[in-house]
Amino acid sequence: MNLLIDLAWLAGVMGLGVAGILFFAVKKESPGNEKMVEIAQAIKEGSITFIKREYQILVVFELAVFALLYWKLSPETAFAFLGGAGCSMVAGLAGMASATNANVRTCQAARDGGQDKALLVAFNGGAVMGLAVASLGLIGVGVLFGFYGNPENAAVINGFAMGASSIALFARVGGGIYTKAADVGSDLVGKVEAGIPEDDPRNPGVIADNVGDNVGDVAGMGADIFESYVGSMIATLAIAATLSAAGVLDIARGAASEEAARTHLMMLPLALAVLGLAASVVGIFSMRVLKSIGPAAALRYSTFISAGLLLLGAFMLINSSNIATGVWLAVLVGSVGGILIGLITEYYTAGPPVRRIAEASKTGAATNIINGLAIGLESCALPVVVICITIYVANDFAGLYGIGIAAVGMLATVGVTMTVDAYGPVADNAGGISEMAGLGPDVRAITDSLDAIGNTTAAIGKGFAIGSAALTALALFSAYSMAVNHVRAAQGIEPMLIVITEPIVVIGLFIGGVLPFFVAALTMTSVGKAAAQMVEEIRRQFREIPGLLEGKEGVKPDSARCVDISTRAALKEMILPGVVAVISPVAVGFLLGAEALGGMLAGATLAGVLLALMMANAGGAWDNAKKAIETGAIEGEQKGTDAHHAAVVGDTVGDPFKDTSGPSMNILIKLMSIVSLVIAPLLV
Amino acid sequence: MNLLIDLAWLAGVMGLGVAGILFFAVKKESPGNEKMVEIAQAIKEGSITFIKREYQILVVFELAVFALLYWKLSPETAFAFLGGAGCSMVAGLAGMASATNANVRTCQAARDGGQDKALLVAFNGGAVMGLAVASLGLIGVGVLFGFYGNPENAAVINGFAMGASSIALFARVGGGIYTKAADVGSDLVGKVEAGIPEDDPRNPGVIADNVGDNVGDVAGMGADIFESYVGSMIATLAIAATLSAAGVLDIARGAASEEAARTHLMMLPLALAVLGLAASVVGIFSMRVLKSIGPAAALRYSTFISAGLLLLGAFMLINSSNIATGVWLAVLVGSVGGILIGLITEYYTAGPPVRRIAEASKTGAATNIINGLAIGLESCALPVVVICITIYVANDFAGLYGIGIAAVGMLATVGVTMTVDAYGPVADNAGGISEMAGLGPDVRAITDSLDAIGNTTAAIGKGFAIGSAALTALALFSAYSMAVNHVRAAQGIEPMLIVITEPIVVIGLFIGGVLPFFVAALTMTSVGKAAAQMVEEIRRQFREIPGLLEGKEGVKPDSARCVDISTRAALKEMILPGVVAVISPVAVGFLLGAEALGGMLAGATLAGVLLALMMANAGGAWDNAKKAIETGAIEGEQKGTDAHHAAVVGDTVGDPFKDTSGPSMNILIKLMSIVSLVIAPLLV
Repeated sequence: MNLLIDLAWLAGVMGLGVAGILFFAVKKESPGNEKMVEIAQAIKEGSITFIKREYQILVVFELAVFALLYWKLSPETAFAFLGGAGCSMVAGLAGMASATNANVRTCQAARDGGQDKALLVAFNGGAVMGLAVASLGLIGVGVLFGFYGNPENAAVINGFAMGASSIALFARVGGGIYTKAADVGSDLVGKVEAGIPEDDPRNPGVIADNVGDNVGDVAGMGADIFESYVGSMIATLAIAATLSAAGVLDIARGAASEEAARTHLMMLPLALAVLGLAASVVGIFSMRVLKSIGPAAALRYSTFISAGLLLLGAFMLINSSNIATGVWLAVLVGSVGGILIGLITEYYTAGPPVRRIAEASKTGAATNIINGLAIGLESCALPVVVICITIYVANDFAGLYGIGIAAVGMLATVGVTMTVDAYGPVADNAGGISEMAGLGPDVRAITDSLDAIGNTTAAIGKGFAIGSAALTALALFSAYSMAVNHVRAAQGIEPMLIVITEPIVVIGLFIGGVLPFFVAALTMTSVGKAAAQMVEEIRRQFREIPGLLEGKEGVKPDSARCVDISTRAALKEMILPGVVAVISPVAVGFLLGAEALGGMLAGATLAGVLLALMMANAGGAWDNAKKAIETGAIEGEQKGTDAHHAAVVGDTVGDPFKDTSGPSMNILIKLMSIVSLVIAPLLV
Repeated sequence: MNLLIDLAWLAGVMGLGVAGILFFAVKKESPGNEKMVEIAQAIKEGSITFIKREYQILVVFELAVFALLYWKLSPETAFAFLGGAGCSMVAGLAGMASATNANVRTCQAARDGGQDKALLVAFNGGAVMGLAVASLGLIGVGVLFGFYGNPENAAVINGFAMGASSIALFARVGGGIYTKAADVGSDLVGKVEAGIPEDDPRNPGVIADNVGDNVGDVAGMGADIFESYVGSMIATLAIAATLSAAGVLDIARGAASEEAARTHLMMLPLALAVLGLAASVVGIFSMRVLKSIGPAAALRYSTFISAGLLLLGAFMLINSSNIATGVWLAVLVGSVGGILIGLITEYYTAGPPVRRIAEASKTGAATNIINGLAIGLESCALPVVVICITIYVANDFAGLYGIGIAAVGMLATVGVTMTVDAYGPVADNAGGISEMAGLGPDVRAITDSLDAIGNTTAAIGKGFAIGSAALTALALFSAYSMAVNHVRAAQGIEPMLIVITEPIVVIGLFIGGVLPFFVAALTMTSVGKAAAQMVEEIRRQFREIPGLLEGKEGVKPDSARCVDISTRAALKEMILPGVVAVISPVAVGFLLGAEALGGMLAGATLAGVLLALMMANAGGAWDNAKKAIETGAIEGEQKGTDAHHAAVVGDTVGDPFKDTSGPSMNILIKLMSIVSLVIAPLLV
């Protein structure tokens, strides 16, 4: 069995190797002319500076939590926590370094190699993030499993997931505020007031906007998915470690003893992740062949290929190791569920509802907003049905363990799903650079088409991130209650039942439910404040720098100042939501008890998932409704009409929805669950 | 003890008598000149026509449910159901008849008696609704209690609450769609496109808009509060009927036997309601003295006087009947909690957050919307904290019974709180009539100031409605689970525990949580569709009726057609949300089981309360932000500036939020809970 553990971290190391090869392969490509290099350099510097300053703040926070864990729980848990945080940070840095190399090279590839080549460069640039997430997760969990992979000590591994979570929340919230402050700010002054195009080099906020794509959509998204990936494995492992003897033997039927069966089940998530990583590498490399069938289809098929391979491998693995076939069915529903949620998201953010919003724009901004909100609210229903069916089937076939495994199944091919996700901001940046460097309409046409697909993949990715966060949080929630009962059983106390008619549980439920609303309010307000500062600074530059708005030769905006404004605002505003998320489960757990904390997790997961779906889908639909008008898909309307102005209002409202507040929800619910799981032993 | 039952329904009859006196006292006032009478007549006819057509549809639905209950449960429950529905309908009709008398008479009182007299007429006009709600509720529950007020048969009384609920949902949703379709439609064409003032007689939609105030804010709100009032009493009664013997004796310590104690506890809600009605009558009549201290203070003090009297009376009653003082503390926290939620609502819809939205309007509609949504999201936190504290304290002092009693305490003075609520639309209508009849700036100034206070009381009333709905739903939820267990115990089955870590409960929780989002989406969409029809019709009339827009003497708009459009749209669109609310608990209960249904109720209550708070407060804040700009409270801004246009967008978005979708949530959660309570015996 130790063979598997070695295999896990070795696979991770090999995955990192592949990521390294892709990193240098991308870097080897030509970065284009001097102007392009200069712009790309500014974006890269802004991104790296932000991440460095963010990490400086986080190090203080992480060390404080480390000390607390060391003192209150165990040194091992504390070090695992640092490991999780460190892996998440490294993955984010690596992915961003690669994305900021790939953006300008995608642009150049579009110039001298056409669409296929540009697609490949952007995709490979994203693949570094995808593979880094999958590989570092596997190495971290694999190594820890080697040391603590037995039912008695497995709780140590939870620290790793908590470390990953804590980084994720700050990265998502900070990155989200950064990117939307820059985006909203430069759009409000540039597009609306000054009437210059998006990404125009005269706009001082454009570099910050492009930096935002990297720190928000690459680093932030990566940390989010890293956390889900690690969290799903660790929750399943924790469930397996605390499952009853009968439960264990019922699933791993062929095992010689209860212990052997339990170890089997604890290892399965790791084995599935190894399979998933291998399947992802195949999916990533298949892009070399797929690229000629058109970018949208190519991206979709690379995901399908990986999912298919995972399911095939999982079937053989599970059958050959005498684990009940029901477990494979759980992998299947998880994997299919993830894809279905993505497709539903695509319907709401690129299908008929978009036209409804665009049509409603004809009667003004108010009807655009009313319809967008209505569609966002409506869009929660089907994904929730998919989540419910996934839970039902997974539980029916393999109990709570099945729910954990379904989450693992959804996330095992994270290497490729994250790649497709990270491709989006690379393509978006490439478009920005081609505009700023004045590369002409041919190049812009290619980058625009890649960017448009990137918007759709981003929306699908967000749906997937929410679905996987929901399943992961539920698995962590089960793990939490089992962990509490495990300690209680050891002390001879009867098991805790979180009964929802108990007033204290209802109170927990309500506190949990209101937290996502509160964090959403905080982050929306932060974007508003930061964007207002950005607006003032851009207005000031247009006013005070002579010749800037007229586009006089040699006059440049002071982009660094805008980068600095976004950086400061994001770093300042990320603190409160992060602290709220970490402290509230601790406070409720110790003040109101373990049952109330259980209610709180349920309430937070429910409200968080619903708000996340609503915000992500409304935001995506508003964005595309505006694009539909701009591309002439709505009869009688075009850029500059009243309907277009109304649609721009919707798009601007949607920005913090889909890129700041909505995504924060995923991490909020996972972070609260993992903090609860870690402190569970202290609550008995 | 039968004395109390007689007292209850006699008090109800006397309350109706007082309502009758006020009705005729208002009617006796002068309705003003011919033009005013004509306008008032059109509003009255429109309102009555709508209600009649609504009731025609509802009768079919009610009879179908009656047949089902008769067949599946018992003839008694079925007749109780009809009784509840009938009382709610009569209360709605009486209240609306009075409100549509009072509107024009308030206007005339402002002309010849000044503000004090106008205030009194409007208040008395609203008091008919307030007293009708309280009295009919007391009569219905009192009479049923006389027949079925013993632990074995008490379940019959649940039918009464279900009848009230079913009417409430359709009335709220239908009324909400009606009023906002008319409001949004006539504002979009009149104020925004044609640039004519609100309530201008040239606008064909103005009569429909004024009708909407009556059918939405009087009849709809009345049905909502009637349901909470009845629901809180019946839930408490049901809890007392199924409480354990030890639990009963622990609360009613002085009773001779367990049965005597139980009867005591079952009767207490009724006794509190009698006290509350008496306190309300005093509060209502104190307005004669209070009116000279200024309308805002007068309205507030009339509520405080009633609450104070209730608490005093309850203290004496509870102490003298040997019930634990903890029960009185539950009344206290309920009553204070209701007032606190109202004050928090006032802060968010009339305090500093309003200025924040108004300031944000300076940078456009998008920042207005972002800030409004952020404030709506933020505004959920404190009311939820109040609800949690109320639950905690009530439960701590008197268990689940205490939670029911807290809801009763919050709602017992419904006679006066509903009066203050219904005052708002009367004052609003008075303003509309004075504008349409061209009564000049002096009269308009009085009606405007009364209307402005009405907006604040409406916002407070909405907060109160949500808070009371939350407590009532939670009490009903407890009653549901106790009812299931009561039947199980009788059949020798061990009690059901709704354990939130069970996958089937999680599934129920998610289904329940998504329903409010879905119903909100349906109702928002309905308003959008109906408003669009209204926009087309008003545009058509301005285009096709010569001289209308120019205000040519003798040219009148075809208001009846607009009334008809709103009526048809509302009646058509109210069906689906209503049916969803009734069918979903039945479907989940029978398909997934009683535990899943429990999870569903918890999820729906949580998501419903949060959405209701968010929508009501954001809507109220947007409305007042627009008014702040119009009244010159924001430096440099006024009617017609860009910031004002942005604020109008926010106000228009807020309309369906605060008057259609938000209020529907209250009833959705109560209706689902009461349906579950009624079908509980069938789920074992």
